[in-house]
Amino acid sequence: MTKPGSTSRTTLKRLAEKASDKISDLHSILDDNFVAHVGVVIDGSPLVIPMAYGRSEDVIYLHGSSGSRLMRHLEKEPEVCVTVTELNALQVSRSTFNSSMHYRSVVIFGTAKLVPSQEKQRALDVVSEALIPGRVAEARPTTKKEVAGTLILSLSMEEASVKISAGEIDDPEEDINRGYWAGTIPLTTVVGDAIPADEESVSLPVPESVKRLIARRSR
Amino acid sequence: MTKPGSTSRTTLKRLAEKASDKISDLHSILDDNFVAHVGVVIDGSPLVIPMAYGRSEDVIYLHGSSGSRLMRHLEKEPEVCVTVTELNALQVSRSTFNSSMHYRSVVIFGTAKLVPSQEKQRALDVVSEALIPGRVAEARPTTKKEVAGTLILSLSMEEASVKISAGEIDDPEEDINRGYWAGTIPLTTVVGDAIPADEESVSLPVPESVKRLIARRSR
Repeated sequence: MTKPGSTSRTTLKRLAEKASDKISDLHSILDDNFVAHVGVVIDGSPLVIPMAYGRSEDVIYLHGSSGSRLMRHLEKEPEVCVTVTELNALQVSRSTFNSSMHYRSVVIFGTAKLVPSQEKQRALDVVSEALIPGRVAEARPTTKKEVAGTLILSLSMEEASVKISAGEIDDPEEDINRGYWAGTIPLTTVVGDAIPADEESVSLPVPESVKRLIARRSR
Repeated sequence: MTKPGSTSRTTLKRLAEKASDKISDLHSILDDNFVAHVGVVIDGSPLVIPMAYGRSEDVIYLHGSSGSRLMRHLEKEPEVCVTVTELNALQVSRSTFNSSMHYRSVVIFGTAKLVPSQEKQRALDVVSEALIPGRVAEARPTTKKEVAGTLILSLSMEEASVKISAGEIDDPEEDINRGYWAGTIPLTTVVGDAIPADEESVSLPVPESVKRLIARRSR
């Protein structure tokens, strides 16, 4: 696939040192996060909606109910911009002006394509497994009717940019040794203990996929 | 101000029970989060970029360096869609089909307006205080040159929608008592201990604003 940041609109003109052209970074940001912000143009106006997604190789899948306004629009296979952002810290500089954030983000440009009927089940499973690996095999299988009622879109990651901001505080020389503090405040998404939904679930063991997710994501 | 969800494009047609028309919900979601996804249309194509923001009454401010591609475009005062999403849990249903997420999200439509020179300092402070309340008074003051080199935009929240998904598992009757588990996996953004940037900062006390943020956001 094309390296991140290799087209005119994915080349970072500013803060170029924060750009990454590593496909491994692109994949890791997508695989470590749960929500994408999907942008489309409807009647000339921008619309940005959060969606669940899943990656398989160099394709991401987006899914929703066929009843929603965004999904009805996506059915037309429009141009999309899909952005995934992971916030890792507040960077507190000596001045608020130089303060910033540590984050990793991916921006993907392309045309969303409807996944054909015979590939929908697999694509849905990609999204489910992206959220909770191993869950598909444990859950009640999806019915044909459910698959039929779902729209799922694919987006090839031909044109993407990756930005990673994790740098040191870069206060100018004249701000040093004047008694102002600088540092970072780490932010982490932590997974809590699973809460069973009802009596039946209380009586059952917590599924292995859920236990593994919690173990991997807890501190 | 106009209630959330009261215009044609902010009325939720699907999952209407998740819509909120409370201004207090709109404000609380914006105040509790750090990153907005800002969508614009450039040459007919969507672009979605994460940005820091701050709220003051019914206006949000967005800021960035005047050098960036997005900010140069925002300088034209285009239509924007600003979306803030807070992910609170993975909702694990008995089927992956019914599985979902708990979240709170805000979608704001409007036209970004350049903040005039004489109001820029205050608008910048709104963004800084939104991230770390009390920080402005402790930090090295912003210089006139810094303020001049910054673009800051305001967006009035006349047209917004709020969606809150925190519901119970809604597995259909026929999925119950077949041995499938259902429950939620809570996700929380946790603030870690402040990490001083350098020797000077190690020698200084952690600022009160930073201590308060950590105390409020730690578990």
